[in-house]
Amino acid sequence: MKFLFEILKQISVSGDESSVSASILQYIDQRKDHWNVIPIIYSGENFHDCILLKFGEPRTAVFAHMDTVGFMTRYNNQLISIGGPEIIEGSVLVGSDSLGEITCKLHGDENEIYHDFPRGIDPGTSLSFHQNVRLDEDFIQAAYLDNRLGVYSAMNLCETITDGWVVFSTYEEHGGGSMPFLLKFIQNTSPVRQALISDITWITEGVQFHKGVVISIRDKYIPRKKFIDRIIKLAKESGIPFQLEVEEFGGSDGREVQFSPYAIDWCFIGAAEENVHTPDERVSLADLEAMLNIYPFLLERL
Amino acid sequence: MKFLFEILKQISVSGDESSVSASILQYIDQRKDHWNVIPIIYSGENFHDCILLKFGEPRTAVFAHMDTVGFMTRYNNQLISIGGPEIIEGSVLVGSDSLGEITCKLHGDENEIYHDFPRGIDPGTSLSFHQNVRLDEDFIQAAYLDNRLGVYSAMNLCETITDGWVVFSTYEEHGGGSMPFLLKFIQNTSPVRQALISDITWITEGVQFHKGVVISIRDKYIPRKKFIDRIIKLAKESGIPFQLEVEEFGGSDGREVQFSPYAIDWCFIGAAEENVHTPDERVSLADLEAMLNIYPFLLERL
Amino acid sequence: MKFLFEILKQISVSGDESSVSASILQYIDQRKDHWNVIPIIYSGENFHDCILLKFGEPRTAVFAHMDTVGFMTRYNNQLISIGGPEIIEGSVLVGSDSLGEITCKLHGDENEIYHDFPRGIDPGTSLSFHQNVRLDEDFIQAAYLDNRLGVYSAMNLCETITDGWVVFSTYEEHGGGSMPFLLKFIQNTSPVRQALISDITWITEGVQFHKGVVISIRDKYIPRKKFIDRIIKLAKESGIPFQLEVEEFGGSDGREVQFSPYAIDWCFIGAAEENVHTPDERVSLADLEAMLNIYPFLLERL
Repeated sequence: MKFLFEILKQISVSGDESSVSASILQYIDQRKDHWNVIPIIYSGENFHDCILLKFGEPRTAVFAHMDTVGFMTRYNNQLISIGGPEIIEGSVLVGSDSLGEITCKLHGDENEIYHDFPRGIDPGTSLSFHQNVRLDEDFIQAAYLDNRLGVYSAMNLCETITDGWVVFSTYEEHGGGSMPFLLKFIQNTSPVRQALISDITWITEGVQFHKGVVISIRDKYIPRKKFIDRIIKLAKESGIPFQLEVEEFGGSDGREVQFSPYAIDWCFIGAAEENVHTPDERVSLADLEAMLNIYPFLLERL
Repeated sequence: MKFLFEILKQISVSGDESSVSASILQYIDQRKDHWNVIPIIYSGENFHDCILLKFGEPRTAVFAHMDTVGFMTRYNNQLISIGGPEIIEGSVLVGSDSLGEITCKLHGDENEIYHDFPRGIDPGTSLSFHQNVRLDEDFIQAAYLDNRLGVYSAMNLCETITDGWVVFSTYEEHGGGSMPFLLKFIQNTSPVRQALISDITWITEGVQFHKGVVISIRDKYIPRKKFIDRIIKLAKESGIPFQLEVEEFGGSDGREVQFSPYAIDWCFIGAAEENVHTPDERVSLADLEAMLNIYPFLLERL
Repeated sequence: MKFLFEILKQISVSGDESSVSASILQYIDQRKDHWNVIPIIYSGENFHDCILLKFGEPRTAVFAHMDTVGFMTRYNNQLISIGGPEIIEGSVLVGSDSLGEITCKLHGDENEIYHDFPRGIDPGTSLSFHQNVRLDEDFIQAAYLDNRLGVYSAMNLCETITDGWVVFSTYEEHGGGSMPFLLKFIQNTSPVRQALISDITWITEGVQFHKGVVISIRDKYIPRKKFIDRIIKLAKESGIPFQLEVEEFGGSDGREVQFSPYAIDWCFIGAAEENVHTPDERVSLADLEAMLNIYPFLLERL
C-alpha cells in the first residue's frame, strides 16, 4: 500500500492535477518492468495531465480519475467550491501560492465560504482537505479516498493485466472534460467496446460496509442492461463478494462514456464509502480487497 | 396498423430496448422486399440496440426513438423513475425478473415510489405501464404512444422513401446517449445536412387536437431559423394540415443533433398527445394521419 | 469603430444569426487585403452561419460569438426568452415578421412575458432589444455589447495576426451547439492546442471598471491551471492593464472547448460590463482598449 499512501499525500483538485499525474507516471516507470505485460504509455501535453496505458490487445478500458474535490480562493478571503466538497466549519485546508505554503481553516456555509489565513491568498489558488490517513483492522479513513482507491485499484490491475487500457483521467469531480479526448484517442488507437469505471461510491440503505465491491446497475445514468447482466453473471462466478447498487443520483466518468460518439458499454465498479467528499471518507478494507480482486477477474473474461 | 399494435405490446424502458429492437428488425426483414427501395440495414452489437436504414443517397436523416419511460426496482419494494413517468397512485406496472412475470401496482408519490408485488423483485428490474390500447373514430389511446407512433411513422416512410436515413434510436427518454454514435456513423458512411425528429409532442394552449401534425419551431432548444422557415414553406405547399409549436421546455433527439460535432439542421415533426408519460396517452387519428403524410412529402423535397 | 457601430445595429438572436454573419463576412471581404496576412475564409451552408478565418500556421484559436439574447413570440401575445435576457417592464423590442417591421414594448415578468404590438406577430419570430448606443469619454453603453465587443476585438486582431484561427460562432447565449462542429473542423484542418474566448464578462465585487481587461481563472467551469498561469505570466510582461476573475457561475464558448474531444486549453479574456443582458450594457473604454491590445500580444507569444 506504499503507492496508495504516496498518492494520498498529493493535492490534485480538478484543473490542477499535474503533481499527482507526475507521481503516478513516476511509479509506472519504476514498476512497469515487473508487470506481466509492459504497456505502451501515452502522456504529456498532448494528453494534458491524463495518462493512458495500453496493454496487449485491449477489449476493455478501465478509467480511474485522479482529481479530487476542493476549494478555490476568490476575492478577499472568500472560497468557492471545486466539485462538491462538504462544507464543514473548521475543516483544515492546505495548498500553496506564490508566497508559500498555506494551512488554514474553513468557515461559513454553502452560502458563503471563507478562510482564516492571516494573509491574502492569490485568487484562483486551489486548496483541499488536510490529509490524515487512519488505518485499522477493518477500515481505511482519509481524505481523497474518492478516488485514490480507484487509482490504486487500477494500478494494482496493471500488475497482471494482459489486454486492456488502464486510463487515469482528470476533471471528473467538476463536470468532466478529459474523457471525450481520452475516448477519441482510445478508439482511434486500439478501440474497445467495454469500459469499467474504477471509482468509489456511497454507503446507502442498500449498500453496506463489508458486503463486497459494488457493481452499480445505475446512478443518474443507466448503463445498458445487456452489459450489466453479463457483469453480474461473471461476478457470481468469481466468488468475489459483491453487492448491487441502484441509485437515482450521482455520476462518474461513465456518464461521458454514455454520451460519447462511440457504442461503448460501461459499468461502475468500486468500493463504497461513508462521509463522502469530506476529510473523513471511510472504506471497508474487505470491500477494497474485493475491488482489487474483481478487476483482474473481469478484465480477463470480458 | 398491425405493426403499431405489435410494438405497443413491447416493453422497452430506456437501457433495456433489446426486445422492441428485435421486433422492429424482424418487421423490417419481412417487409423490405415490398418497399420502393431496399435499404442497407445496420444493426447488432456494434450499434447496441439501435437500427439504421440507408436508402439510396441520403440528404436527410429521420430519427425515431424506441425507448419509453418507466421505473426501475431499487432496494426492498422501492421504485425509481426512468425518464420522467407520471407517478399515479395505483398505476398497473408490468415486467419480469429472474423469478418470472411481474404485475403489480404503483404506490406513493414523487418523493417515494414503491410497488405492492407480494415477493421481492430483483434490484435493477425495469417495469413499465400495463398496456391498454383504446381506439375509436377520432383517437388512439394507450401507453407508449410516445414514441411508438414516431416509430410507426418512420416505418411507414420506409414504404416509399427513395433517399434518406431512417434511424431507430435508444435512451431518448433518459438523457440520450445513442445519438452521438449514430450521428458519427451516419456522417462517416453517407453524410447528411438535415435531420427530422419523428416523435410525439404535447397538447398545450397553442397545440390542439385535430389541427394537424406539429412542426416545432422550438422547445428548450432552438433549431436554425433558416431551416425551419424552409420546412414551413414546404408544409404550406403540401396541403397537409399542420400547426406550429413554440415551447420553452422539453427536448428530443434534436438536442443531440444540435450539440453534435456536425453542422446538421434539425426539426421536430410529430403529432401531439395529452396525458403525456402516463398509461393513457391520447393522440388524434387525424393528426397521426397528417404525420404519416408529411414525412414522405418532406423527404422527397428537402 | 465604424464596424462596431455597424454590427451593433444588427439583430442576431441565437438561432437567427444570418444577417450579422453576412455583415461580418462583407466587412472581412472589404478589409482582408489590408491585413498583415490574408486568411483563408470558411463560411456558407457547410458552416451554418459561422465564419472561420485561418491565418498562417495556427497555434491558437480565438472565438467570438455573434449571437445575442432576445425573445421569441409564442402564441397570442406571449413571449419566451432566448438565452437569459433581463425581463424589464417596458423594454422596447424590435424585429420583423411576414407582415413587416415590429416595434413593441415588453410587459410582465419571469413568469409570463408578453408584448403590446397591436396586431398578432408570427409565432417563432425573434425580437430583441431596441438599440441605443451611447458613447462618452469613459464608457460605451448599448444593447448587445455582449458580444459585439468580442466580435470587434476579434476583428481588430485580424489586422495584425500572422498565425491563428479567428472564429465567429453562433448559439452561445442559448446553450451552444456550433462550437462542436467548429472545433472538429479546426482540428481536422489545422489543429491547435490553445483557445481564447473573446467575450464580455460581468462587473462584480472583484472585477471593476477601468481596472483593465479580465482574464478569467474560472466561471462555472475551470480551465487547466497550467495554461492560466502561462497567460497571467504573459499578461504581466505585456504591461497591459488586466484583472483576474474567479467566479462560481456563468459560462462561455470555453465550456464547449472543455467538453470537446480535443485536448485544447482555453481561457476567457474580455472586458467586463454592468447591466448584463439588458438594453443598457455598459463597458469602460479603457477596459475595451486593454482587450483590443492584449489579443495581438498573446497571439504572437502563445
